[in-house]
Amino acid sequence: MSDSDPSLLKASALAPWRSPLARALHRNRSKPYSRYCQLATVTAVGRPANRTVVFRGWLPDTNTFTLVTDRRSAKVADIAAHPWAEACWYFTHTREQFRLGGPIQVITSADSADSSLASIRQTAWEGLSANARQQFYWPHPAQPRSAEADFLSQSGGETAPKTFCLVLLSPQQVDHLELRGNPQNRTRYTQPNGDDWLVTAVNP
Amino acid sequence: MSDSDPSLLKASALAPWRSPLARALHRNRSKPYSRYCQLATVTAVGRPANRTVVFRGWLPDTNTFTLVTDRRSAKVADIAAHPWAEACWYFTHTREQFRLGGPIQVITSADSADSSLASIRQTAWEGLSANARQQFYWPHPAQPRSAEADFLSQSGGETAPKTFCLVLLSPQQVDHLELRGNPQNRTRYTQPNGDDWLVTAVNP
Repeated sequence: MSDSDPSLLKASALAPWRSPLARALHRNRSKPYSRYCQLATVTAVGRPANRTVVFRGWLPDTNTFTLVTDRRSAKVADIAAHPWAEACWYFTHTREQFRLGGPIQVITSADSADSSLASIRQTAWEGLSANARQQFYWPHPAQPRSAEADFLSQSGGETAPKTFCLVLLSPQQVDHLELRGNPQNRTRYTQPNGDDWLVTAVNP
Repeated sequence: MSDSDPSLLKASALAPWRSPLARALHRNRSKPYSRYCQLATVTAVGRPANRTVVFRGWLPDTNTFTLVTDRRSAKVADIAAHPWAEACWYFTHTREQFRLGGPIQVITSADSADSSLASIRQTAWEGLSANARQQFYWPHPAQPRSAEADFLSQSGGETAPKTFCLVLLSPQQVDHLELRGNPQNRTRYTQPNGDDWLVTAVNP
């Protein structure tokens, strides 16, 4: 995963979909699950996979969405095979959906030679709660259930363990649907010529 | 789409994951959005696509999940290219997730020659509210926004319009994660030898 996609880290102006998404996050902030969305990837054999993930904020000065995962989780293998994902984010209070599609990259402990990657991974680790950190010391995810004693809590040091990965998704196409209203409003954000965003009102 | 996958329509005993899923639907019933989940498919070019869909119930006497869609929507083309999907269903009140992966099929007006397909499609149409029916008479989804007048409400007849499709997803692998508890409980349901379900407690 040292083949870093430069678009994921590149500083860039706020994309035009960031403002409606920030508004949705703000207006739905009373519900902790408003920071959850569903991340679709494609497995090595070409099947879709879909799971709930927690939004961990934007990489500073970019439009790159961050999340964390365990290196042993299936999504890491999916992304290695197909480095593109689509997140679907539904906000229950304001009844609106954002779909964010684009290249995705996993930053692992093996990326320690690249100081900028190592530094953003370490910063993400430091931002985790003690509870969230614990899980990276647990037995292998999705394997037959281990004994209770294997889940004994470990405090977790200040250095990210090898299981800890930061995942970066840099949307290149965004679809915003507002269910309120009849007909509903739907807006597409695309980058037909590279960096510049094209904003189009489309039919729901 | 006349190449019907027999597993989608076949009568079968209640799968073991149906009971915890029914319980989740019941315990989260006060939230209308508990019937929404995110459906991941793979596009013709091999990228993941993900959007919120509404659960429209089980096909009678089967474990087949139903939803409705517009024939002109991108997901119909995705499914034609890759007839496998994974739905991710997160219940906010009980804090649990179901992932349902399996073959998926679209039943369109072109399937009228098969009387069983035509009949379940027609029954699904009759079960829709007037509001839900209207959208099938609207302009082409995802095209540049049409004039307001093009969205004038049509009552919709008793016969399903050509745009109306019923979609069937027959899960062959189910993953149930309960976030409550530390460590969380996670259960996998698979069919290693065809019809029989294997239930395995796995690590979260």
